[in-house]
Amino acid sequence: MFTNEEKEAIYKVIYSRRDVRSFTSDPVPKAAIERILEAAHHAPSVGFMQPWNFILIEEEEIKHRLAWAADKERRALAIHYENDDRSSKFLNLKIEGMKEAPLTICVTADPTRGGSHVLGRNSIPETDIMSTACAIQNMWLASCAEGLAMGWVSFYKKSDVRDILEIPPHIDPVALISIGYTDGYPKAPILETVKWEKRKELEKLVYHNKWPVLT
Amino acid sequence: MFTNEEKEAIYKVIYSRRDVRSFTSDPVPKAAIERILEAAHHAPSVGFMQPWNFILIEEEEIKHRLAWAADKERRALAIHYENDDRSSKFLNLKIEGMKEAPLTICVTADPTRGGSHVLGRNSIPETDIMSTACAIQNMWLASCAEGLAMGWVSFYKKSDVRDILEIPPHIDPVALISIGYTDGYPKAPILETVKWEKRKELEKLVYHNKWPVLT
Repeated sequence: MFTNEEKEAIYKVIYSRRDVRSFTSDPVPKAAIERILEAAHHAPSVGFMQPWNFILIEEEEIKHRLAWAADKERRALAIHYENDDRSSKFLNLKIEGMKEAPLTICVTADPTRGGSHVLGRNSIPETDIMSTACAIQNMWLASCAEGLAMGWVSFYKKSDVRDILEIPPHIDPVALISIGYTDGYPKAPILETVKWEKRKELEKLVYHNKWPVLT
Repeated sequence: MFTNEEKEAIYKVIYSRRDVRSFTSDPVPKAAIERILEAAHHAPSVGFMQPWNFILIEEEEIKHRLAWAADKERRALAIHYENDDRSSKFLNLKIEGMKEAPLTICVTADPTRGGSHVLGRNSIPETDIMSTACAIQNMWLASCAEGLAMGWVSFYKKSDVRDILEIPPHIDPVALISIGYTDGYPKAPILETVKWEKRKELEKLVYHNKWPVLT
């Protein structure tokens, strides 16, 4: 059971967690990283398959190569925005801070973990990466609780990340995570602040008993 | 910033949250459901696309049809375990409690939300369902904090769930969630208790700088 104070703390972290792209160079305490990884490992997983691995990257050269892969993807995507109203906004967005953050974590999902017939994954195979996303969300909440900033980078070609980190072909490098301290933890989502997207009204996303006929 | 007490509450919920399959018929307070859905809606989403919808199902007839779809899948999967050591264990597992739980929520992901070029999803399309998984993890932590039990059912054919809930073909019904009270919230994962799977050692899942050469 949870006290009211405990409940408030849990909702506080759920509401205040933000995706961060700017970091200071201050080192991250090892004990905090261990707690963040334990939180990840206590995420739910379909069939208890625990499909995740965590590659902790502190070597400068490897971080620079990952940042190169992300920047290459950013420049390629800029081409797709070139006739879009949001073109200049896109070019001004800082999409990652991997060279600044003291720690990058590549989170992977192994679709073969747990053998050929994983309970639940047998019916819906993508529950392996969804389980890994639950682990990442736990990392995010734990980082926020620790006073640390975290960013989830999804601008890259998986083949580049596999090459750089020597990840076997069947393993899915689902996320590049930056962790560090930041000056000024954002109060609102960055994409809301720069007016890229708005938060939707929750009540419009909730239906009853079936999908409505939308007119 | 978080106090030590707040941090402890956050780790407490991360560690004590469990996947539950048995529910009492006690009704769930509406205010708690609203807080759980708000927690879901405050999950991170790639490009702030907020791809989720929540179909709250309380009509008995619809719940029974969903339970039928899950049971059909369970019986079909039992055939795949028939020459497996775990065959009798599988048949004894309770895989869902949708007919007991007062509330079922179908969580969906809309891959078209946010238009044709969603930041980040442009590079890794499955970040839409991964964002939705983060929302589900928030629901799970909020449910646990509220003293409510939650189960994520992934035993069904998506086409059956689309038919029953009249979900359009492009919308992905990623999860059926049961929420209610339970007698005896599990202390350990059910699949660990019945010796289906063990929790892995975290240190074996953590690598440094690159994927190791496994021998």
